Amino acid sequence: MLNFEFQAPTKVIFGRNTIQKVKDEIPKDKKILMTYGSGSIRKNGVYKKVMEALKDHTVLEFAGIEPNPKFETLMKAVEIVKNENIDFLLAVGGGSTLDGTKFIAAASKFEGDPWDILTKGAEIKDAIPLGDIITLPATGSEMNPGAVISRLSTDEKFAFMSPLVYPRFSIIDPETTYSLPEKQTVNGIVDTFVHTMEQYATYDANTPLQDEWMLGLIKTLMVEAKKVLKNPNDYEARANVFWCATCGLNYWMSLGCVQDWSTHMIGHELTALYGIDHGESLAIVLPRVWKNRKNEKMRKLAKMAVEVFGANEFLPKNILADITIKKTKKFFESIGRRTKLADYGIDKEDAAKKISQRFKKRGTVLGERQTITPDEVYEILMHC
Amino acid sequence: MLNFEFQAPTKVIFGRNTIQKVKDEIPKDKKILMTYGSGSIRKNGVYKKVMEALKDHTVLEFAGIEPNPKFETLMKAVEIVKNENIDFLLAVGGGSTLDGTKFIAAASKFEGDPWDILTKGAEIKDAIPLGDIITLPATGSEMNPGAVISRLSTDEKFAFMSPLVYPRFSIIDPETTYSLPEKQTVNGIVDTFVHTMEQYATYDANTPLQDEWMLGLIKTLMVEAKKVLKNPNDYEARANVFWCATCGLNYWMSLGCVQDWSTHMIGHELTALYGIDHGESLAIVLPRVWKNRKNEKMRKLAKMAVEVFGANEFLPKNILADITIKKTKKFFESIGRRTKLADYGIDKEDAAKKISQRFKKRGTVLGERQTITPDEVYEILMHC
Repeated sequence: MLNFEFQAPTKVIFGRNTIQKVKDEIPKDKKILMTYGSGSIRKNGVYKKVMEALKDHTVLEFAGIEPNPKFETLMKAVEIVKNENIDFLLAVGGGSTLDGTKFIAAASKFEGDPWDILTKGAEIKDAIPLGDIITLPATGSEMNPGAVISRLSTDEKFAFMSPLVYPRFSIIDPETTYSLPEKQTVNGIVDTFVHTMEQYATYDANTPLQDEWMLGLIKTLMVEAKKVLKNPNDYEARANVFWCATCGLNYWMSLGCVQDWSTHMIGHELTALYGIDHGESLAIVLPRVWKNRKNEKMRKLAKMAVEVFGANEFLPKNILADITIKKTKKFFESIGRRTKLADYGIDKEDAAKKISQRFKKRGTVLGERQTITPDEVYEILMHC
Repeated sequence: MLNFEFQAPTKVIFGRNTIQKVKDEIPKDKKILMTYGSGSIRKNGVYKKVMEALKDHTVLEFAGIEPNPKFETLMKAVEIVKNENIDFLLAVGGGSTLDGTKFIAAASKFEGDPWDILTKGAEIKDAIPLGDIITLPATGSEMNPGAVISRLSTDEKFAFMSPLVYPRFSIIDPETTYSLPEKQTVNGIVDTFVHTMEQYATYDANTPLQDEWMLGLIKTLMVEAKKVLKNPNDYEARANVFWCATCGLNYWMSLGCVQDWSTHMIGHELTALYGIDHGESLAIVLPRVWKNRKNEKMRKLAKMAVEVFGANEFLPKNILADITIKKTKKFFESIGRRTKLADYGIDKEDAAKKISQRFKKRGTVLGERQTITPDEVYEILMHC
């Protein structure tokens, strides 16, 4: 096990009828900017519940944070925060709204060009406090200090992390997910699966408890995913899928582990360049990264074949690893998520060339040992 | 899944050579009272490392916190805290030292008789901040807000909880456990096992992820326990056992679950009355509580037989539950922990009578549905 340090201050409030609790989590003297997306919270009743709960608070609104939230949009909110002396941000919606709000929190207090937070890893010294009511099980952003932001003008997508943007609280009411379009439910399931795998499928650093937890999450997710797709109003299944999504990226499962994240790095570029969903990009890239790095990840992939897919433990590890790759692809397809670039109308050569060149220009190398070069990324995408 | 709220502020610092980091976790202007036990930290080098790290801090010492820390002893430390204006407590040692220190932290700021904290659940409104260097994998106290305290004059043992006594930081260096007497290593393993089971073996509240995590912990613990007993200097095994102990009671695994804790409640009385170790008391009581409540816990015990003990899933649930009870007892015995009251020279009738009377007097009922009456406790102990 690797040495580690961990501290996560977020208060999680989970369950039915919990939205009203927001009123006790934000001091009355705060001036709140409530952020949200395209307005689905107005249709599913969440907006009304929040406004009712905050009727004794001062609340301004900022709507229109898009999926893969854009720097350009968020900077408009920063303007409002500064002009209106906002001192609390409340994100209501999915991971994009929350990620965007984390950026607003940091950028509002940043001296200099906030784009440097994303491209130069500029230090964040202060941030507006924030909380959230999260309505989409996917990113795990509700219990972590990270966010992913895009820039329209350059078709780029970058992540940043700071303990200062941990939500003060996250309210998770699984009933808010009943009305999700199936596509978003599926993307969230894929996202949760791949988050867990970025932390699991690496070389083996002797972390048996963590491995059990991560494989246990995958086993649970695969069962509960089928249930929510069959019956979108199954409360227990919705609750279990949401808790899987949250735990998929709160880092509890992988403390002391090695992590990969190359699938996400390549996937972010596909989303930035071709506009496909994050979950779609991950389903395309993961199986091929595993194929390319099978030797390195062999022990973990083989263990997964036995524990998750019920394969015979006496098969050669090489064969077991192949079973995991094949069955993972099959799982994505079984829930309606296609796994080839061509399925989304993307020319693989175009993607391979553009993305490997971007990584070359930025000096990006990927993987748990930082040994996946831009040339290997080219090769990976040519096989997607 | 049940609704839940969770927030845990403790910073965990885990791994080799981490003790020195204590100097950065306590502000220089604090006046520290360092608390410890019988002095084993002087023999294993931990004392020296802490003192070296804190050479620029002001540190007073309070030694002699005993296993099952005594109210009478702790009140002497409260005296010192008040007289010396101590404003930070640093517990160095096992769970007893830490639990005792949590009580010192709360009692030092308590108005009235601090014994009320334990017996009347008196509200804790303030506490001295505390941190710890934990050297015994067992209680999980390093990441939770609870503590268990005994009173010499009445042979009683009580627990209390308050978010104000969460450690600010916990430093876990698995190398500090190399020198543990085997008996303590074994007690810690039993304690971790039973903590996990108090959260797992209940009626089924539809918590598949949590179940996977708890059974995954048990599987890991059983394997790694054998390794540390065979080779006490196996770093990886020591690290894995410690992380199991910490996660066994940081509540990450059981959010949204039902919990039991009747084995602990009965075990505490055995320790208070007969002076046996906490781990010993648990190994005696757990199998019989399960036997008595087999119907209620059937689904969970049966699932455990399949997932942990490799039993055939097509066997009747009743038989599977029996397998879990038998194999659990066998596991305790395989690591050298006997499971009968008579093994410790305790007369079962004496114990059954005294403990059921105590519960009657206090109006205590136990179990996840609060349906285990003092009369049933009598029956349970008569079969131990």
